[in-house]
Amino acid sequence: MKLWRNSANRVKILGIDPGFDIVGWSVVRDGMKLVDYGFIKTSPSDPIDERLLQIHRSLDVIIKEYAPDEAAVEKLFFNSNAKTVIDVSKAIGVIVLTLKLNDLAFSEYTPVQVKQSVTGFGHAEKNQVKFVIEKLTGTAFLKGPDDAVDSIGIALCHMLRSGVR
Amino acid sequence: MKLWRNSANRVKILGIDPGFDIVGWSVVRDGMKLVDYGFIKTSPSDPIDERLLQIHRSLDVIIKEYAPDEAAVEKLFFNSNAKTVIDVSKAIGVIVLTLKLNDLAFSEYTPVQVKQSVTGFGHAEKNQVKFVIEKLTGTAFLKGPDDAVDSIGIALCHMLRSGVR
Repeated sequence: MKLWRNSANRVKILGIDPGFDIVGWSVVRDGMKLVDYGFIKTSPSDPIDERLLQIHRSLDVIIKEYAPDEAAVEKLFFNSNAKTVIDVSKAIGVIVLTLKLNDLAFSEYTPVQVKQSVTGFGHAEKNQVKFVIEKLTGTAFLKGPDDAVDSIGIALCHMLRSGVR
Repeated sequence: MKLWRNSANRVKILGIDPGFDIVGWSVVRDGMKLVDYGFIKTSPSDPIDERLLQIHRSLDVIIKEYAPDEAAVEKLFFNSNAKTVIDVSKAIGVIVLTLKLNDLAFSEYTPVQVKQSVTGFGHAEKNQVKFVIEKLTGTAFLKGPDDAVDSIGIALCHMLRSGVR
């Protein structure tokens, strides 16, 4: 099948900052325009299967609504906190499955790669990364928790590195 | 709704030994009768999202076929192999989500709890655990990889500890 359309080069990237308590997400389209961003928050008082279901269902709603073309997910940085690593990895498993169930290809980037791509310096401070994200997307004063803002950096990183601009 | 049936006390437990390369599974019903057991194997040459999808789909088929009442999953033992912990946790996330999507409640047990419940000794050797599983289920010479046989121990552990016999 061939379908030509003028908007065919309009690419939308779904950026995801994975977590168990909170998953940051953003949709950025070509030209580095910020379409939308937000976060999925699960309650620590809910059982784990309920929380993983909430992440799955919410992400599914976001994908159905914005129909992104590709996804970019932050790669887990292994640390010594066993519980965090295990729980966040469970969430990543569910996130990756949800992307796959929606036929959405994804790339993974480390925090250093994201900072390097966005600011030119892999060890930039959080505030500097946020500052550059605001400049690149033309958005003044991004609101919301770090995870939501970080996910924009992940989407931008994918755009800058994969040549989708 | 109330539905009485003679087989109402026939309880089926789905035992799962989670992994990324291989997931062991078993279905054990009351009276410690082994209904079926096996494993899901994913190919290391496939991309991670494909492998997680295979685990999700295969487990879903098993649940639809055997309609278990409860599930028991082995709890991940945290070790220093970062890659293993992250990958197995991703698989556990997908497994737990699949159970939840099928409205199947689950319990988690550590390897020590499984050995303790089945053999009376938390640090029993693998061969001893297998021997006792064969006696309890009345099955001579269980075949298949360790993961498949281990999943029977997990299901039995849940039965013995939760009073479902």
